[in-house]
Amino acid sequence: MATVKLFTDAEAEASPAVKAVFDDIRATRKNDFINNFWRALANDPATLKRVWEGLKAVMAVEGSIDPVTREMIYIAVSTANSCQYCVQSHTAAARARGMTDAQHGELLSIIGLAAQTNHLAIAMQVPPDPEFEVR
Amino acid sequence: MATVKLFTDAEAEASPAVKAVFDDIRATRKNDFINNFWRALANDPATLKRVWEGLKAVMAVEGSIDPVTREMIYIAVSTANSCQYCVQSHTAAARARGMTDAQHGELLSIIGLAAQTNHLAIAMQVPPDPEFEVR
Amino acid sequence: MATVKLFTDAEAEASPAVKAVFDDIRATRKNDFINNFWRALANDPATLKRVWEGLKAVMAVEGSIDPVTREMIYIAVSTANSCQYCVQSHTAAARARGMTDAQHGELLSIIGLAAQTNHLAIAMQVPPDPEFEVR
Amino acid sequence: MATVKLFTDAEAEASPAVKAVFDDIRATRKNDFINNFWRALANDPATLKRVWEGLKAVMAVEGSIDPVTREMIYIAVSTANSCQYCVQSHTAAARARGMTDAQHGELLSIIGLAAQTNHLAIAMQVPPDPEFEVR
Amino acid sequence: MATVKLFTDAEAEASPAVKAVFDDIRATRKNDFINNFWRALANDPATLKRVWEGLKAVMAVEGSIDPVTREMIYIAVSTANSCQYCVQSHTAAARARGMTDAQHGELLSIIGLAAQTNHLAIAMQVPPDPEFEVR
Amino acid sequence: MATVKLFTDAEAEASPAVKAVFDDIRATRKNDFINNFWRALANDPATLKRVWEGLKAVMAVEGSIDPVTREMIYIAVSTANSCQYCVQSHTAAARARGMTDAQHGELLSIIGLAAQTNHLAIAMQVPPDPEFEVR
Repeated sequence: MATVKLFTDAEAEASPAVKAVFDDIRATRKNDFINNFWRALANDPATLKRVWEGLKAVMAVEGSIDPVTREMIYIAVSTANSCQYCVQSHTAAARARGMTDAQHGELLSIIGLAAQTNHLAIAMQVPPDPEFEVR
Repeated sequence: MATVKLFTDAEAEASPAVKAVFDDIRATRKNDFINNFWRALANDPATLKRVWEGLKAVMAVEGSIDPVTREMIYIAVSTANSCQYCVQSHTAAARARGMTDAQHGELLSIIGLAAQTNHLAIAMQVPPDPEFEVR
Repeated sequence: MATVKLFTDAEAEASPAVKAVFDDIRATRKNDFINNFWRALANDPATLKRVWEGLKAVMAVEGSIDPVTREMIYIAVSTANSCQYCVQSHTAAARARGMTDAQHGELLSIIGLAAQTNHLAIAMQVPPDPEFEVR
Repeated sequence: MATVKLFTDAEAEASPAVKAVFDDIRATRKNDFINNFWRALANDPATLKRVWEGLKAVMAVEGSIDPVTREMIYIAVSTANSCQYCVQSHTAAARARGMTDAQHGELLSIIGLAAQTNHLAIAMQVPPDPEFEVR
Repeated sequence: MATVKLFTDAEAEASPAVKAVFDDIRATRKNDFINNFWRALANDPATLKRVWEGLKAVMAVEGSIDPVTREMIYIAVSTANSCQYCVQSHTAAARARGMTDAQHGELLSIIGLAAQTNHLAIAMQVPPDPEFEVR
Repeated sequence: MATVKLFTDAEAEASPAVKAVFDDIRATRKNDFINNFWRALANDPATLKRVWEGLKAVMAVEGSIDPVTREMIYIAVSTANSCQYCVQSHTAAARARGMTDAQHGELLSIIGLAAQTNHLAIAMQVPPDPEFEVR
């Protein structure tokens, strides 16, 4: 049950600011599908545009981290923040970019292990080792 | 201020169960350094052994995700769980395994972006798209 | 799927301690509607009473923060804690108290931005500036 | 670096509302020590009183959960919320109420395990089994 | 909507590694029921085995914390991590091990109180008292 | 102990991309002070620029939420995400924009209450009321 309206294609067409972003999403992704996140964010066209442009800058350009790894990092953060929508959408995105079942399995094992040692380190309040210092 | 004692090398030597794990950490890492996390966990030798063996199985074997990426995923989870010790130790570990400054910068930008869209998706309670379904 | 029973009006009537709180909720809100949170909390009348009285003391009195802002702060915390029920109930409450679509949009943009910089500050372990000190 | 002033004993004496709560803390705990949490909360006497009375009602009465277990549950929540102060204060409180090193070790192993399976269940978006339903 | 396939009994039978773990779950619990968490984890037999063995070691042996208390601690962590599946499965498990309604009510009141004081301590950045130091 | 270098003014001067953002921060805030968050983010000039521009767009323009309220919402999110740096920097910022002690006290009481009811609603898995639906 969303807390905001989800824009239909007709509603998006009726708002030039929303239409411009939806058009760019479709052109960038070479795909007609607009997922619900953007349909919800369309209620605030300024935020829609800023978040989409931030996402394009971070996720859709070439860099030193490959596209599948970027999506796996996204899944890791989304899991720890308990965002159901994000876990589902970025798992689908990672698969679409080529994540194998073996990689997904390893990703989950790393996420689970990290959560375990995170909680242990917090519960023991382990003091950082001076060896970790950035020089 | 830790909530448990940190085992010195002398104290670890005095406990065969702790000594066995510390010896294995040193042998596996080919390095004499034992960081504070293990010195704290040594208070409970059974958990020390289980967590170390879990970490070895997940982080220290060859798999379909390379060692630098594993550490970057670890940083992502540790950040979202707000574990200071873990962020510091795994950033150091990622650098030791070859993470470049460019990769670290991109990693942080992905973590920040994911956190932003996680919170937006939760605040809007966006319903998952049927297209995400695993077939 | 709740982990506790949701009290019906008939069940609430049958427990004087629950009835007293439900009556006060209705009288305070000038509204007959009792939402599921209180119907669930009714399983433990002492906690029901304490939480309701805490909520009345914090949310239902005049103070230096206006009622719409209080609800927006509530939405912010509920989002970061990933509480679906709370995000939905307090978004409805904020709207009932007069939150406009423009305010909701701005609220979401602040929540998203804060989450992004929170994660960046944690990942970089930024040391607090001495200038922040309370004098 | 606190974001609020910590009340000294002299400052607490000067505010009747703060003094009343500090006196009750000392009388209830049969101990002269007032820890920093209450010295910080004293900036808002109404919240100081409400939180202290909530804590007394939940933690300081006889019930069906014994005092050591209550403190262990408190440590578990504080760890998952990454509250350093709370982890430290409630670990000290649990020890003062009789928590043994063995219990602390087991507590940490449960917290770590739960965090691991929590993250795995979220990452896999496991659907609840109908068998869990409350009848 | 799970992000991985849930193994049916027939699929589990077809994988010796999965079958071995499922058989051990049934033998250990003296119960034929395999809940969805394990059916999801079966996609990665190595993690399935490691997590199950970790859970057996922590939850299914005699120790200094009784079985009901272990499940209550699990509920506390799962709540703070906002894991719906885990809250539901471990509330059912705690009840199956004998948790009474009174204990459940007290558990919830402690979880709620801890969350409140956790957030207050973080918002005020209360400095730890030297009295908490482990000697 | 930061995981990245903090740029000094001299280092910022040496990088045109960093200098441009630092100049804009000083001009926008009409203040020479650059806090450590930006000095840390300077390691990645593209992210520095994007985050600063996002922050300016959200926090430094006129809108339907006043500047003190924006900072209070920021404190609420930062607390729930357990970001020490952010709690400290945005409490200082809120005070600089005019937040009174009374407002700060009320803010904390709302944050604490919300955390309590968030955890209770999650632990009870309360189903959303149909009345919350956006029409």
